[in-house]
Amino acid sequence: MTGLFLTFEGGDGSGKSTQSALLTEWLTDRGETVVHAREPGGTELGLELREIILHRRGYMAPRAEALLYAADRAHNVATVVRPGLDRGDVVIQDRYLDSSVAYQGAGRVLSTTEVRELSLWATEGLLPHLTVLLDLDPALGRERLDASRTRYDRLEAEAAIFHERVRDAYLALAEAEPGRFLVLDATEPVGALQERIRSRVSALLDTLTP
Amino acid sequence: MTGLFLTFEGGDGSGKSTQSALLTEWLTDRGETVVHAREPGGTELGLELREIILHRRGYMAPRAEALLYAADRAHNVATVVRPGLDRGDVVIQDRYLDSSVAYQGAGRVLSTTEVRELSLWATEGLLPHLTVLLDLDPALGRERLDASRTRYDRLEAEAAIFHERVRDAYLALAEAEPGRFLVLDATEPVGALQERIRSRVSALLDTLTP
Repeated sequence: MTGLFLTFEGGDGSGKSTQSALLTEWLTDRGETVVHAREPGGTELGLELREIILHRRGYMAPRAEALLYAADRAHNVATVVRPGLDRGDVVIQDRYLDSSVAYQGAGRVLSTTEVRELSLWATEGLLPHLTVLLDLDPALGRERLDASRTRYDRLEAEAAIFHERVRDAYLALAEAEPGRFLVLDATEPVGALQERIRSRVSALLDTLTP
Repeated sequence: MTGLFLTFEGGDGSGKSTQSALLTEWLTDRGETVVHAREPGGTELGLELREIILHRRGYMAPRAEALLYAADRAHNVATVVRPGLDRGDVVIQDRYLDSSVAYQGAGRVLSTTEVRELSLWATEGLLPHLTVLLDLDPALGRERLDASRTRYDRLEAEAAIFHERVRDAYLALAEAEPGRFLVLDATEPVGALQERIRSRVSALLDTLTP
């Protein structure tokens, strides 16, 4: 495996897609081959699962939900992420296993250790080289969402306390793995955040170049 | 939990649905409340997952497949099986975790221990009181299927060697848990098989009655 695997994490409205798109553009301009992936729904199979996970009506058993995310992840890693890394590409992905631990684990009161183990089994232990956590007060994230949407998916529609638990879980994950995480204050200007991300990624690329 | 959980296992064409339907009829006549369940696809969510698992075209990562079965199982157990057992009903189910171990484990060359652990996590450790294994030479099962169908699902269409591995895995599971399994020769007449199943279930019901 010779590529670089970068993931973006954070609550809704924290700017993950904006920052990952800017990073993709910058890396492409630098001559890197970038695979821009996402979960859930980064593959054809994943799109079907994403529709079920996010938009299905009615009760879904918490363990079933966690297993569906893991299934999406297993297929995405086997067919998109690993092949990209094997080719030496940079794989940039919006959401990865930390999302599951934060949302299904902390949010859904399943064991966070078990949810993490599930993802590690699904991916045969693949961890990102760098995970950018865009930390944001959920109330602010919600304001940003309100400004841009008229309809929420099943997780976005959860109560404020759920999103508070998700935020706390993210910060705990970053504290447990300081080497992998870059935690940023998502209220900073877009350009300033992107500068900090590029600087870290640039250093990572230097360590990889023979 | 006061009910009785009975599962039927075996290869395609081994007579699981015939035997479980006859057992359901007999138990109902005896005054038992019977929930006749199945996997995959025993719930509304499960039907959507079953369609993906069995009829989707194109490559599916083996771990994704195992996780989809586990998701179906988690939802089925949480919303159908456990509520039934809690009410004191008899839950009769075509296929359960042994199918996953046999098909995804042995058949797909994943670790059987890991696939079993996955199912136990999905179901919070729920094992059947009795599992009837209808053992059959896959070549004979295939003949029976050929006589009744014109179209095969994704797993039925696997090569003969796959179904041989599944059969061997089933027999190994039964050997490891002789107390839970009743292994029957599926080439015996339908009525004779049903007699043996009823006799074992009858004894189980007697032990449960206060």
